[in-house]
This record gives sequence, C-alpha cells and structure tokens, in this order.
Amino acid sequence: MTTTTSSPRTPEDDAVVRERSGRPISPDIAAVGPAAVPVTVPTSAVSPDAAAEDATDVVDTRAVGDLLDGRWREQRRASRDLALHPDFQRLPDQTVAEHRERVLWQLRELVSRSEVLRGFPREVGGGGDPGGNLAGFEELFLSDPSLQIKGGVQWGLFGSAVQHLGVPEQHATWLPGIMSLEVPGCFAMTEVGHGSDVSSIATTATYDPTTEEFVLHTPFPAARKEYIGNAALHGTAAVVFAQLVTEGRNQGVHALYVPIRQRGEDGELTFLPGVGGRDDGPKGGLNGVDNGQLWFDHVRVPRENLLRRYGEVAPDGTYSSPITSKGRRFFTMLGTLVQGRVSLGGAAVGVSKAALAIAVRYGDERRQFTGADEHREVTLLDYQRHQRRLLPLVARTYAAAFAQQGLLERFHEVFSGEHDDDESRQDLETLAAALKPTTTWLAMETLQESREACGGAGFMAENRLVTWRQDFDIYTTFEGDNNVLLQLVGKRLLTDYGKAMAKIDIAGAARFVAARAGDMALHRTPLRRAAQSVLDSGSKARSAGHLRDPEVQRELLEDRVETMVAGIASVLRDVKDAPAEQAAAVFNEHQDELIGAARAHAELLQWEAFTAALDAVPEGATRQVLTWLRDLYGLERIERNLAWYLVNGRLTAQRGRVVTGYINRLLARLRPHAVELVDAFGYTHEHLRAPIASGAERERQEEAAAQLRRRRALPERVAAT
Amino acid sequence: MTTTTSSPRTPEDDAVVRERSGRPISPDIAAVGPAAVPVTVPTSAVSPDAAAEDATDVVDTRAVGDLLDGRWREQRRASRDLALHPDFQRLPDQTVAEHRERVLWQLRELVSRSEVLRGFPREVGGGGDPGGNLAGFEELFLSDPSLQIKGGVQWGLFGSAVQHLGVPEQHATWLPGIMSLEVPGCFAMTEVGHGSDVSSIATTATYDPTTEEFVLHTPFPAARKEYIGNAALHGTAAVVFAQLVTEGRNQGVHALYVPIRQRGEDGELTFLPGVGGRDDGPKGGLNGVDNGQLWFDHVRVPRENLLRRYGEVAPDGTYSSPITSKGRRFFTMLGTLVQGRVSLGGAAVGVSKAALAIAVRYGDERRQFTGADEHREVTLLDYQRHQRRLLPLVARTYAAAFAQQGLLERFHEVFSGEHDDDESRQDLETLAAALKPTTTWLAMETLQESREACGGAGFMAENRLVTWRQDFDIYTTFEGDNNVLLQLVGKRLLTDYGKAMAKIDIAGAARFVAARAGDMALHRTPLRRAAQSVLDSGSKARSAGHLRDPEVQRELLEDRVETMVAGIASVLRDVKDAPAEQAAAVFNEHQDELIGAARAHAELLQWEAFTAALDAVPEGATRQVLTWLRDLYGLERIERNLAWYLVNGRLTAQRGRVVTGYINRLLARLRPHAVELVDAFGYTHEHLRAPIASGAERERQEEAAAQLRRRRALPERVAAT
Repeated sequence: MTTTTSSPRTPEDDAVVRERSGRPISPDIAAVGPAAVPVTVPTSAVSPDAAAEDATDVVDTRAVGDLLDGRWREQRRASRDLALHPDFQRLPDQTVAEHRERVLWQLRELVSRSEVLRGFPREVGGGGDPGGNLAGFEELFLSDPSLQIKGGVQWGLFGSAVQHLGVPEQHATWLPGIMSLEVPGCFAMTEVGHGSDVSSIATTATYDPTTEEFVLHTPFPAARKEYIGNAALHGTAAVVFAQLVTEGRNQGVHALYVPIRQRGEDGELTFLPGVGGRDDGPKGGLNGVDNGQLWFDHVRVPRENLLRRYGEVAPDGTYSSPITSKGRRFFTMLGTLVQGRVSLGGAAVGVSKAALAIAVRYGDERRQFTGADEHREVTLLDYQRHQRRLLPLVARTYAAAFAQQGLLERFHEVFSGEHDDDESRQDLETLAAALKPTTTWLAMETLQESREACGGAGFMAENRLVTWRQDFDIYTTFEGDNNVLLQLVGKRLLTDYGKAMAKIDIAGAARFVAARAGDMALHRTPLRRAAQSVLDSGSKARSAGHLRDPEVQRELLEDRVETMVAGIASVLRDVKDAPAEQAAAVFNEHQDELIGAARAHAELLQWEAFTAALDAVPEGATRQVLTWLRDLYGLERIERNLAWYLVNGRLTAQRGRVVTGYINRLLARLRPHAVELVDAFGYTHEHLRAPIASGAERERQEEAAAQLRRRRALPERVAAT
Repeated sequence: MTTTTSSPRTPEDDAVVRERSGRPISPDIAAVGPAAVPVTVPTSAVSPDAAAEDATDVVDTRAVGDLLDGRWREQRRASRDLALHPDFQRLPDQTVAEHRERVLWQLRELVSRSEVLRGFPREVGGGGDPGGNLAGFEELFLSDPSLQIKGGVQWGLFGSAVQHLGVPEQHATWLPGIMSLEVPGCFAMTEVGHGSDVSSIATTATYDPTTEEFVLHTPFPAARKEYIGNAALHGTAAVVFAQLVTEGRNQGVHALYVPIRQRGEDGELTFLPGVGGRDDGPKGGLNGVDNGQLWFDHVRVPRENLLRRYGEVAPDGTYSSPITSKGRRFFTMLGTLVQGRVSLGGAAVGVSKAALAIAVRYGDERRQFTGADEHREVTLLDYQRHQRRLLPLVARTYAAAFAQQGLLERFHEVFSGEHDDDESRQDLETLAAALKPTTTWLAMETLQESREACGGAGFMAENRLVTWRQDFDIYTTFEGDNNVLLQLVGKRLLTDYGKAMAKIDIAGAARFVAARAGDMALHRTPLRRAAQSVLDSGSKARSAGHLRDPEVQRELLEDRVETMVAGIASVLRDVKDAPAEQAAAVFNEHQDELIGAARAHAELLQWEAFTAALDAVPEGATRQVLTWLRDLYGLERIERNLAWYLVNGRLTAQRGRVVTGYINRLLARLRPHAVELVDAFGYTHEHLRAPIASGAERERQEEAAAQLRRRRALPERVAAT
C-alpha cells in the first residue's frame, strides 16, 4: 500500500500527470467493457488477494492527488498539516466549557501560526487571495470542525460581512481587530422565527435624525437572533441584520456593526446596556463554538455603523443606494456572503475523503468469516456488499471534489475581481446552492456508512468518524437549509428554461441551439441544455450506445434534468393566470419533484466535472481506473433513478436490467485499486490519527493467522491446548 | 390537538377499539380512491389551516395507542413514565466518568423502583414474564439509552446467559447477585478479531483434570474481548465465551462464569490475578456505559463455573452434551440470546415514534415563507416536500411497531414455554434477524430526517434528537451487524425455497400450494409463499387491480421477495457441483442482491403486520386514516423498488407512473391527521421534554403574527418605527 504524503513545502503547481513508467498493468485492468448479461465470474473474485497485490502502485496517487487538491493545493496542504500538531487536535471528553475555551485559544494560535487571513484585502494586511483562503479553511475540519466553524464565524461571516458590506473606511476601522481576534464577533442574521428566510427577519434598525443614531430593537421573542456563534460567551461585537427604517419607510434588510459586550475592570465580559442574550447550551456537535441568542432593547448605535456599501442614510435620514430595486439590493447583499456555502461544501468533500480513507483502508485489512479457503478469512472489501457500500461513495466523493474545485475557482474569479459581473455572481450563487446540499448530504451518508462498515471500531471516538459526523450534521441545514437551497436552484432552472423557451420563440430553434452550445463550452450556465431535448427527440441514449460511453451517460443525466424541469414548467404555465391560491397549490404539488430536479442537476454538474478532470490524465492505467470510477458514478446515479428512465421510455427494460450487472463488474475491477484511490486523497495516518486505519489491524490479523497456522501444524491433542 | 396520556395505573387490557361517536368526518376524508392521473388540486392544499382544524379528533388516538402498545401496554407505559422522574433523566454535558457513575446509580434505583426483573424465573424472585419484561426494557431509551444498554448488559446479556445457558443450581448461585446488582457483570463474547462471527473467537478454556479447573486464556491480542459493557470499570464478574477444550479436543464455543475483579480494603475494585483490561474511552454515544477490553492469562476457574445446560465436562475431563451436533449445539446456545436482538428492535421503534412526535408536532406549528397569503406564513407540514420527508416515516414506524409486537409475542411464547419447539425457535431467530436491521436503520433515518426537518432547533441537545441519534447509531451493528443478520435471513430464505422446491417434486404442485396456504395462516414461516409464483404465473398485480387494493400491494411485495430468492437459488444451483472457489465467487456476486431480498422480506412482514392490525379497528374514520397510512407504507416501498417492478415486467410503465402521484395524494390526505397519528404513540410533552415540541413554537408564532397584524393596521409612517 502506498501513501501519498502531502508536501506543503514543495508545491508542484505545474505537475504533469503521468503514468509511472515500466509497471505492468494487471490482467484484470486490461479487460474493459461491460458484459451483455449481468452475471459472470470475474477471476478477481476468486483470488482477490492476488489481484490486490498485483494492483498496488497502478494508480499514480501523487498525480491524482494534485488533480484533486486543485489550484490552491499548496494552501490546502499547509492547512491539512496543522492537524499534525497536537495544539490543533481535539481533546477527547472535554466539557462544553472546556472545549469552547480551547477552540478560542486555538483560533488565536491560528492567527500567528498560519495564514488564515489570506482572504482579506491587502490594504488591511490580508492576502487578497479568496480562493486560497477557502482552500485552507476547508481543511480545518481535520483538526476539529469546531475550530473550522469558529474561524468561519469570525473571519468568514463576521469579518466577511464588514469586508463585503462595508466601505474602505469601515474596513480600516474594524477589520484589523477582527483579523487579529482582538474583537471576537458575531454574525447576527438568523432569528428564532426565521432561518433560511432572511428577508422576513423582524429586528428593526430605526434611524433617529435627532441624534444621528440607529435604534436597534427586537420587537418580540421570535425576532431574537438565534444560534449565533460567539454570542454565548466570546463576542464583543456583532454584525446585526435588521430591517432598516428611516423616514418612516422600511428599506429592507441591512447590516450594522454593533458592539455588544464590554470588558469590566475585573476582566469579565458583560453585555452592554440594552443587549440581552442566552447560551444555547450543548448541541449535537460543534460544541467548541459558543452559540447563543442575542436580543436588543432600543440599543443605539451611531449612523456610521451602518455597513453602507449597498445602502446609506444621510444625517437627515435620507436613504440612498447604488441599487434602486429593493429586491435586487437584498440579493446583492446576501450574495456577497456566498463564501460560507462554498467553503462548507468544500469541508464536506474533505471529510468524505477522510472518512473513506479510514473505512477503505480498514476494509482492505480486516478479515471476517472464511470463504472458499477455510483457513484464511476474507477481507471485508472482497465482499460484494462491502464494495457496494463504499466504492460508489468513493466515486461520488471524486465527482464532488472535482465539481467543488470548479466552484472554488468560480468563487475566486468573482471575489478576486478576475471575472466579476452580475451574471457570474448569479451563476456562482446558483452553483453554490446546488453543490452545498449535495456535498453536505454526501458527507453525512459517507460518515455513517463508513462508521457502520467499521463496526464497533467505527463507534469509538478515537477513530474520528462519529465525532466528525456529530459536527457535520448541522452543515446540512445551516448557511441555508439544503432543501431551501435546492428549491432556489429549481426555481432558477425554471427561470432559465422560461427564458430559453422565449428565445426560441423569438430567434428560432436552430439559432437557439447554436447559442446554447456556446454557453455549454463556457460551463457557466446552470441549465446545460435547456429545452434542447424538446427539439431533439432522437435520443442517442434511447436508440443505441453502451452505458459505458460517456456521451450516453451524459445524455441520460442531462435528459432527466431537462425533462423534469420542462414538465414542471408546463404545469405551472397552465396555472399562470389562475388565482394565487391555486397557483401556489399547484407549485406545492410539484415541490418534491422540483427539488429532485435540482439535485439531478447538481449530480450532472459533478459528473461533468469528473469527466472534464479525466482529460488532464494521460492515457494509461491511472486514467483507466479513474474512468471506471467515473462510470461507476454515472451509472450508480442512473441506477438510483432507473425507474424514471424506464417510466419515461429513456431506457428499455432490457437495457435497464444491465445497469446493475455492469456496476457490479465495475466494483470488482475497482476493488484492487480502492486503497490507492483513497491514498490519493492525501490524508496520511498521521493526519487521520485513527488507530483502525493505521495498519494495526493488518498486523493483528497476521499475528493471529500465524498463531493459528502454527497450531494447525501440531498434532491434534497438543494443538488444542 | 389531542394527546394520549399514558395510564399505567388504569390498564385497559380489553379496551375495545371504537370510533368516537357523533363527530363529523371532514369532507376530505370522504373522498377516497386514487385519481387516474397523478396531478390534481386537492382542496386541502389550498387552505390547509381550515382542513387541519376540521381534522382534529378524527383519529381515536387512545384506541390506536392501545393497538400500538400491544399486549404488554401496561408494563410499557409504566417504564415510559420512569422518564417523567428527574432521577432517570439524562443530565446535559456530563463527562464520560460522570455519566457512567450516574447510570450505575440509576441502574441500582431501577432495581428498587421499577420492575426490571420481571424477565427472570419466579424461582429466584423474578416475574417469569419475558414479554412484559422486554416491553418495559424497550422504553428505557426515553430516560437515557445508556441506562437501557447498561441494564441490557447486566440483566439481558450477563444475567440472561446465566439463566439460559446455566442449570437451576447455577441460577440459584449467581442470579440473585446479578439481579440485585450486587454483582455488576460482563457479557464477554465479542473479540477484537471477531464480532458477528462468534464461532471464530479464539479465547480458550482448557480443562485441567488434575485440579478440576478450566484454564481461560487469550492466545494473542486479536482474541481480547472488546467493547464489553461493564468491563472498563464496574464489572466484578463476567460470562466469558471461549473455545472449550478438554481431552485435547475443541468442543466449540461455551460460556463460563468468571470473577474478574475484587474489592480491596480501600473499597477500590481491582482486577483479579491474570485478568487484564483496557478502557475503550469515549464513544460516539452511550457514554454512560463503560465499555472496555478484557483478556486472560491462564486464569483458572472451577469446573462448576462452566454454564452447563448444553455441555458439561465431568471431573475426569469427559465432555457430554444433550446436543450431539457441534453446529446445532452452537446455534442452540446462541439462540437463547435472541432477546437482545428482539429488544433492540423494539427500542428502535420506540425512538422512531418519539422522534416523529417531536418533528411532526414542530412541523405542524412552525411557519416559514409566505404562500398565496402574503400576511401568513405556511406551516412546514403543509409543504409537500416536508410531508414527503416525514409522513412515509410515520407509516414505516407504524408498520415496524406492529411487526415488532408480533415478534415480541413470538418471543414470549417461546421463552415462557407457551409455544416452545425447535421450529418456533428458528422462526423466532429468523424473524428477529430480519426485523432488527430494518428497525434500527429506520430509527437512524427517522432521527436524522427529524433532526434536519427541525433545522437548527433539531441540533440543540435539549430537543433530544441528536443525542438519541448518537446513542442509537451502534444499534445497527451490535448484537449482530445488520448486514450479517440480513445475510443470515437471506440464507434461510434460500434454504426454505430449496425445501419447498423439493416438496413440490415429491408431493406435486397442487398439494404443496395448499400446504403453504396453511402455513401462511399461522404466520410462522418466514418465506411466505415460497415458490408459489413459480407455479402461478397469472399475476393479479400484473393483469389488473388498483394499487390501493391491499391484495395488489401484497402480491407486489411478495412477488419481489420470491422472485429474487428464486433467481439467486437458480444461479447457485448451477454451481453447486463446481469447485469451492467458484461457488464462493458466484455467491459473492449475488450477496448484495440476497441482502436486498432479505430486506424486502422484512418489509413484507411489516406490511402484513400493519394490514393485520387494521382488522382490529372498527369501520370508520380511524380505520380510514390508518388504511391510507398502510397504503402509503406499501406504495412507498413499491416506489422505492419501482425499477425492479418495471424491469421484471410486474408493472407497466403506465402503471408505474401512477405510483408517485398516488403517494402524493395520500400525503395530502394524511397531512391533517399527522399530529393525531403521532399523538397515538403515547409520548406526551412531559415524556419527550423537547422544548420545540411543547407548543412554545405555536405561541411564538401567534405572538409574532399578532404584532405584525397590529403594525399593518397602523398608518405607514407610524408602523415602521
């Protein structure tokens, strides 16, 4: 078994992916192509041990690791290596209070010992490197997700809000204290009554021209700020989101910089007058973050504390904004905060990799039950069921990782100014809204399956899987509830579809299709081939082609998204002139389907990212193995939605029957390379610190086997004692 | 909203299920039957509030609660009510050490304050009531799953092993101390190297006739006992499973009663000479149980300490057993320990009910985003997606509860002696092996979906969902790994199928089918209609019938199990004379499918149990609602495997397309009754202690809505301030 060691000090930004020369390809690898019937007897299943030994070193794990770690691999690996130092490792069995203090201390250490500030503007001492910043941030889960999230609260939310919603003078005033942690702060957006529906928050900031102050107020308990990181203990300031009211008019949600606590002469922090709060207490995970409630009783802050990049109030109370539409202003302001969604998705990909590195290595060593050889137990990963549980998750994690790299690059382009315009921002937001649910759910599924695949050992805290799962649980609903985000994506798909149809009406079908083909090349438009299927009824997938043909996979995946969207659009068009209640009811009746379409869209994007990544791998064994893995991803998605393809006539029953058989063949082919595929993730035993994935299991197995062999070699009466 | 209060002091064993008379049935209920096309506009979606109010009190929650709680409802409810007392409630944020001590203390309190000993024989002061005992045990999760599992270790495993594997003299010697907790003890079966594969454990107990002692020994580290409850701290004795060796022959796995710790003069417990151990430390959950390793270095125990019901060693070393076959002896001994699997499944059903009681009540009160009415937000449970997430889980929990009741009754019949023979025991074991995976996975899915459906509030420890999930995680792999258990069930299905086919050959088809029909009525045979489909090719499901017809649902569910089993049997028959390696490889290629067949079998049993339970409900509104719920269960299972039905020609594409539409209609019909359906589970706010399910959310919503209404009534300029 080879292990990719991360090498933060010797980056190879231009590393050429190449095959290790001179190594023979195992016979099993050479046999490509699905069988016509699902059940055959691949030789690898007969003697898996031999196959596994042959297969070692077939995959160029270093080159694949470079691909997976992407453009900011140097920053990513440096952050990963923080987890090697005991200072940044989580201690077992701490109380909530102890854990919170330790994480605060770690956060301060991060400021001096790493480059966590590289996302801030150069003008205030940051690195001006948004992409590299997030790449590093994403890996912090390896130390402790609480550290990641507390850092995210401080710099990614509190700091980012000042950075993106404030003007340069405000940056100069507040960012240095935020960056240095002199001012731990809160991002006070969510309220008891409203989480993902930000526009409905009820806290008010009413301008009083007589004193040139805003009066911040919580009108009723449901308007209290809730689940706010740093609110329970450590925060001394907050960016508070509130309905801005001036001259008797509500100008919508705006953000204000609000001091909330002061340090007394005894060194204790206490709330400033008018500010109230409550500790949320123990949570399902992330207990190193001090979440709590905050509320305000007519708290006055100076006019200058309104973060005024997108909306300003003059001394006399006159409101002005560079964006006249209230709705567009709201979405522009919120859009600047997309980095939370981007980076949580990245962290979710990271933890999926780490979990699989543990479970696959253990499954490759652990033996249970004898098979054909009564003297030698079978390794878990040689069981088909075990392959079925873990290998598709490896494939999905690869696909998610490549798509996430694309998202991070898009994020960097926008926020570094390399490619920043309205359309890019909207596409970035939609892409983040599509991928964050997919990756955070993938992480939950992967962590749980990995835990169960490791049995009782997986349940021990020392093996990391259970605590990561506890911490990552909330990633599925914070920074935008996954279902709400997918519904947003679904609505965007409907809008794009509507626009596309309108264009067809105006410009004619042929020109429209040509235009869309151009869009596709740019990889910027969420709805990849909107409406094309309406024009092109001669489906390649239906008429011919093998399922291993990437064009067939692509078409099947695309077709499903488009057909679902077109179907819902058509139903909604029928009620567009109906009374509001009826239209809402019809929309609701298709809500589940719309969310399903959005998920299918995200999976298509992941498939495409995986496929695009294959182009960077030279022809050879590594590319072959990765191609099987991509096929596994595509076919497993198709299998999961097979009923849809059959019901809608996209696949015949006969072809549908072949899918599972082909997947099983891919599993058997990939099994010998499973460890290499997770080695490429770049997490060493030292990074993971999971005893079960440290090679100890193999040693124990060898030792036990040797004992039993010796015993069998003895005469019966002696052997028994 | 009505709430069933549990009434341990006024049991109504003969309660007659009857409709509440005189209440009108809401118009929506009267409209029964699926539409021919999936998409229509039910009026309930337009004005859900009105429908919800009309619907209150339609379901007779008390009668349904009696049905759900079954034969031992009195014991069940008494145990449930233990959770009302603060002494038995879990404290937040305890360290592992504190939690362990508290649970030990609680366990001692249970002895004096409840009837946890009712499973033991009357001769030693128990209650001789195995069914009632497990019913009570299953509800302990409501206090703290650690209490449940520590009690399970002490009485259900350690005590049960003495009870079932020992003889009456041994009961008299050891059971009193076990029952009173004077002797906290361990059930030392699992080893580092072997969990679910018990026959491969490597600890040896070698008889030495010179001293009439057994020498207990751990030959290598992989043979250490692992994850043993009470081993880390509290256990002073253990039932240790070891390969029994006498006269130079290994007689297979047997159990011995072994003292492991002594209390010194300072009151501290220390290991006895030759016994070693290790604390497993923090786990993903159940941290009130002190799991650890145990090992033995030539530890000598008297000959009398062999639990000798199924195997005895005479002073001279001669081995004897009432069961001559070594294999049968092993399975008989293990079979006596089935109660762990039975009761864990029951606990999993309980926690699913509790989680849904929380999530459904919250979803019925919580409002997010406005719909057609811009002044009133929509309750979560009025969103189709939210219904889709929770209501099928309600249906599955009902099905699981009814099946679990049947399993518990079977268990009681066997262990009370009411109906105890070899076949009953085998059926009981197979049924337990089928249901334990299904219910424990259901619990995981339900807890997670409920947590996410409650958003951030679901992540707060005070709302219970996350801590239950942490604790129940291990239920999926302990007491038999779920996948291993399902494979056992799959093999049993294959065996039964083989026997059935053999009978056909001998007795002729017609008589065979008649015999099977008799079996079905007894509800004792796992494979319900084995092989009948081979004879009966004219499928009702295929040719006609509505999906809401229970016979159609039954046939579809049965057909799938049988066809899958028959298919695998046929492939295996083809290689039965092939070399062992090839046969093993072919079996492995169908392992995933076989496990799938076993799961399908378990789901069929649950569907049947639900359907049988409906017979106990008089005609009327309650029965109507429960029938929709059963249909939802059946159709959701069919939808999940729709591809199989399509590929195998059991449903046409046209009929397949209707399934989802019909499910959506059922969801809309069930939504107004969702709260009643979870009220019937019998968990009050006081039992659950989850603030979000206490009605506080509704109050907060009303208060906020009133404020906003008042504000809208004011002139614009005033309203804004």
